[in-house]
Amino acid sequence: MAIRNIALGRAEEATHPDTLKAGLAEFISTLIFVFAGSGSSIAYNKLTNDGSATPSGLIAASIAHAFALFVAVSVGANISGGHVNPAVTFGAFVGGNITFLRGIVYVIAQLLGSIVASFLLTFVTGLGVPAFGLSAGVGVGNAVVLEIVITFGLVYTVYATAVDPKKGNIGIIAPIAIGFIVGANILVGGAFTGASMNPAVAFGPAVVSWTWTNHWIYWVGPLIGGGLAGFIYEVLFINPSHDQIPTTDF
Amino acid sequence: MAIRNIALGRAEEATHPDTLKAGLAEFISTLIFVFAGSGSSIAYNKLTNDGSATPSGLIAASIAHAFALFVAVSVGANISGGHVNPAVTFGAFVGGNITFLRGIVYVIAQLLGSIVASFLLTFVTGLGVPAFGLSAGVGVGNAVVLEIVITFGLVYTVYATAVDPKKGNIGIIAPIAIGFIVGANILVGGAFTGASMNPAVAFGPAVVSWTWTNHWIYWVGPLIGGGLAGFIYEVLFINPSHDQIPTTDF
Amino acid sequence: MAIRNIALGRAEEATHPDTLKAGLAEFISTLIFVFAGSGSSIAYNKLTNDGSATPSGLIAASIAHAFALFVAVSVGANISGGHVNPAVTFGAFVGGNITFLRGIVYVIAQLLGSIVASFLLTFVTGLGVPAFGLSAGVGVGNAVVLEIVITFGLVYTVYATAVDPKKGNIGIIAPIAIGFIVGANILVGGAFTGASMNPAVAFGPAVVSWTWTNHWIYWVGPLIGGGLAGFIYEVLFINPSHDQIPTTDF
Amino acid sequence: MAIRNIALGRAEEATHPDTLKAGLAEFISTLIFVFAGSGSSIAYNKLTNDGSATPSGLIAASIAHAFALFVAVSVGANISGGHVNPAVTFGAFVGGNITFLRGIVYVIAQLLGSIVASFLLTFVTGLGVPAFGLSAGVGVGNAVVLEIVITFGLVYTVYATAVDPKKGNIGIIAPIAIGFIVGANILVGGAFTGASMNPAVAFGPAVVSWTWTNHWIYWVGPLIGGGLAGFIYEVLFINPSHDQIPTTDF
Repeated sequence: MAIRNIALGRAEEATHPDTLKAGLAEFISTLIFVFAGSGSSIAYNKLTNDGSATPSGLIAASIAHAFALFVAVSVGANISGGHVNPAVTFGAFVGGNITFLRGIVYVIAQLLGSIVASFLLTFVTGLGVPAFGLSAGVGVGNAVVLEIVITFGLVYTVYATAVDPKKGNIGIIAPIAIGFIVGANILVGGAFTGASMNPAVAFGPAVVSWTWTNHWIYWVGPLIGGGLAGFIYEVLFINPSHDQIPTTDF
Repeated sequence: MAIRNIALGRAEEATHPDTLKAGLAEFISTLIFVFAGSGSSIAYNKLTNDGSATPSGLIAASIAHAFALFVAVSVGANISGGHVNPAVTFGAFVGGNITFLRGIVYVIAQLLGSIVASFLLTFVTGLGVPAFGLSAGVGVGNAVVLEIVITFGLVYTVYATAVDPKKGNIGIIAPIAIGFIVGANILVGGAFTGASMNPAVAFGPAVVSWTWTNHWIYWVGPLIGGGLAGFIYEVLFINPSHDQIPTTDF
Repeated sequence: MAIRNIALGRAEEATHPDTLKAGLAEFISTLIFVFAGSGSSIAYNKLTNDGSATPSGLIAASIAHAFALFVAVSVGANISGGHVNPAVTFGAFVGGNITFLRGIVYVIAQLLGSIVASFLLTFVTGLGVPAFGLSAGVGVGNAVVLEIVITFGLVYTVYATAVDPKKGNIGIIAPIAIGFIVGANILVGGAFTGASMNPAVAFGPAVVSWTWTNHWIYWVGPLIGGGLAGFIYEVLFINPSHDQIPTTDF
Repeated sequence: MAIRNIALGRAEEATHPDTLKAGLAEFISTLIFVFAGSGSSIAYNKLTNDGSATPSGLIAASIAHAFALFVAVSVGANISGGHVNPAVTFGAFVGGNITFLRGIVYVIAQLLGSIVASFLLTFVTGLGVPAFGLSAGVGVGNAVVLEIVITFGLVYTVYATAVDPKKGNIGIIAPIAIGFIVGANILVGGAFTGASMNPAVAFGPAVVSWTWTNHWIYWVGPLIGGGLAGFIYEVLFINPSHDQIPTTDF
């Protein structure tokens, strides 16, 4: 989890081999994550003949996302920092831990990874990839706030366990924590908004199924939640120590 | 997991920036934990139309709490020690590992975090937050003893893996152990008392739903269990080594 | 996980404060483990009105045991080595990693922990603690072999991740591995013998429910499996390196 | 996880004690893994009277494989590198991280481990070991691509967390990541191809049940996916650093 030390100067960016490699790592990590995550919903639909959601279905989605995101973060950690999520990249940008150009490369790679994963799922399963949407009775405002709160929890976890220079040994288990907070939050939000916490995760299935109803919620909610977490954590828990120990790594 | 080294002298306390920051960290950690934990019950109620508890429901609650508490402890570890629970703070106080004033700040922050999480859940789901209570046929005495036993296990785990200066490498996986003992205990106690092990976890939903029947059980049980664990572990397994290696950190 | 370095000379044993403390740690660890493990079966019986076993029930038992054993091993690791199981203690003895007297203290402590946990469960739940037994159609010979195979896997895991001096960083996650192999094996053996892998786990519920049918299987199977694992691992993978690097720790 | 440093010169191979020991470790690890993995399917069949697959069944299979593979990799890590899978060994060979002869020893040991596990399962359960096969409506081409994609994810994870010399602290949790990506992928692929990702896992049950329909898919898919992952990761993320830091370990 080397998010902080990946921030390079402008001259090295975007076309620099390291940036391109990091983008490729984000692409592969997001592909692995979305394939297992969205794929578990397709498997559920197949096994239940498109039955309605049940607690067992929510558990399957929770475990699939928790395990796969933990792995996706782990495999990307030493190359790109393992963002796997535009909301994490945006939170890193707000806190000053990634440059704008490099962030753009990451987000494009994440969106492409999700699209390719969704197309692969369509081919291998022969079934539709379900787009994210609101459950019956869930209002738009409630949905946005839900996505803000759960993405805040996710990006706050990324900051506290992986970005914070004081993280110490917590950094060793950071990828597990990052995966598991998503697993926990799905057991709440999965029954209301699908609990995306990640614009890329919603984007691929939306493209492949060409379903855009309320799609903006999965951008606005996560970006606000992630940005807030990055800003609050950086200002309250990281910046003050900079007064005493000046660093040059962003 | 720096519970031990957070104990400060009186002069620095309560209004000291570090104490306030630690309180804020406890507030956010508890908010994240209660949002996922109590939220998973609301999601279960929605998916089953308020159906009665089933093994699947207990598994969902177990995983949601295990994963979310592991994360809540991890993200608070380096700022406040990651108590996320008045019973843990009380156990730390009994063992001499936190001062009274700092402990008060922690407990207030934990209670506020739980209340805010519960209000947020009410807003985003549009449904009620279920208060803790006894299942049919469970007596008050049995319930108190159950909460004592399972909270003893939790706070004993905190001491052995995070507070004990001899913890060594076990400290690296301490937050996972702390989260998972709660997950395991919910698979027992969830069917009888809800398996709170944490007065803050019970307090927020009680405030928001204004349900106080037997609420005292979720304070008395956990505080006795947590206090006992702190006392026993400190006297039997930590104090003796102080004879040989004097320390000044409490 | 300091199983190897807990082996003391005879003069220090049994009445030595460290041995008594280690026994106490084994008692508490086994109590925590059996309370969650057997308790999850009682909760299942309550929620299903003593319904027959289902995949959900097996998952609940698997998670409860996996999480609780991981924690029980973690909290005992630095005091007693975290055996929590007479078959592990016997395997350690066979491989020369614990003395006979100290092993006896451990086993007595483990049995007492299981008995106390079972009595506590009876009191707090008001229900019976289910004794281990064979499912319909399972023969005694098959049951013994099943317990041998799954306990071999457990004690082999203890040796490879916690006892082997070459364990390196694997030792950090050893308690998780030890807990999780039990969780995995329950998903097989739970439907046939209950998948005890641990005489203490079977003994407490047998005492409290006074049910002794086929109880010997839960001693013979695990002790053979655990002894075999200790012997094979020590001879094949540990001893040869002693030729080059003499050690004195047993 | 010392895959990289197990590659020996030709003279030492095949009959060298270390190679034979590594083979034995692969045999035992694969036996433990297949016993829990395939065994969980037999338990499911017993509990449901050979009922059709459900989300609960998929969760049980996911957890059994995730937990058991994590353990199988952990216990083999310091002896053989913990491949437990011909596709991993092939991926290691393609990337230049194991020699041909040593790889052959590994694969034979893995196949034997799976066969012995399957025979043991037949004996202890008295039931058939289900062979891998395609669910209704799944075409051969789709199945091969599915196995390629999910095995790519698995072997990419092995490379990023265990083989890559830059892995750092991620190496500590590598066995968990390797086990859990298999658990996540089963929640997708389990409903279509059984999600083998491992020729040895499919081979043992095929031998014991003598079922060879479409068996080739479980060799071709995983070997292509594993080989691709080894090649891509080595070329893109490992080799370039060799220009700067020459190594001699393969």
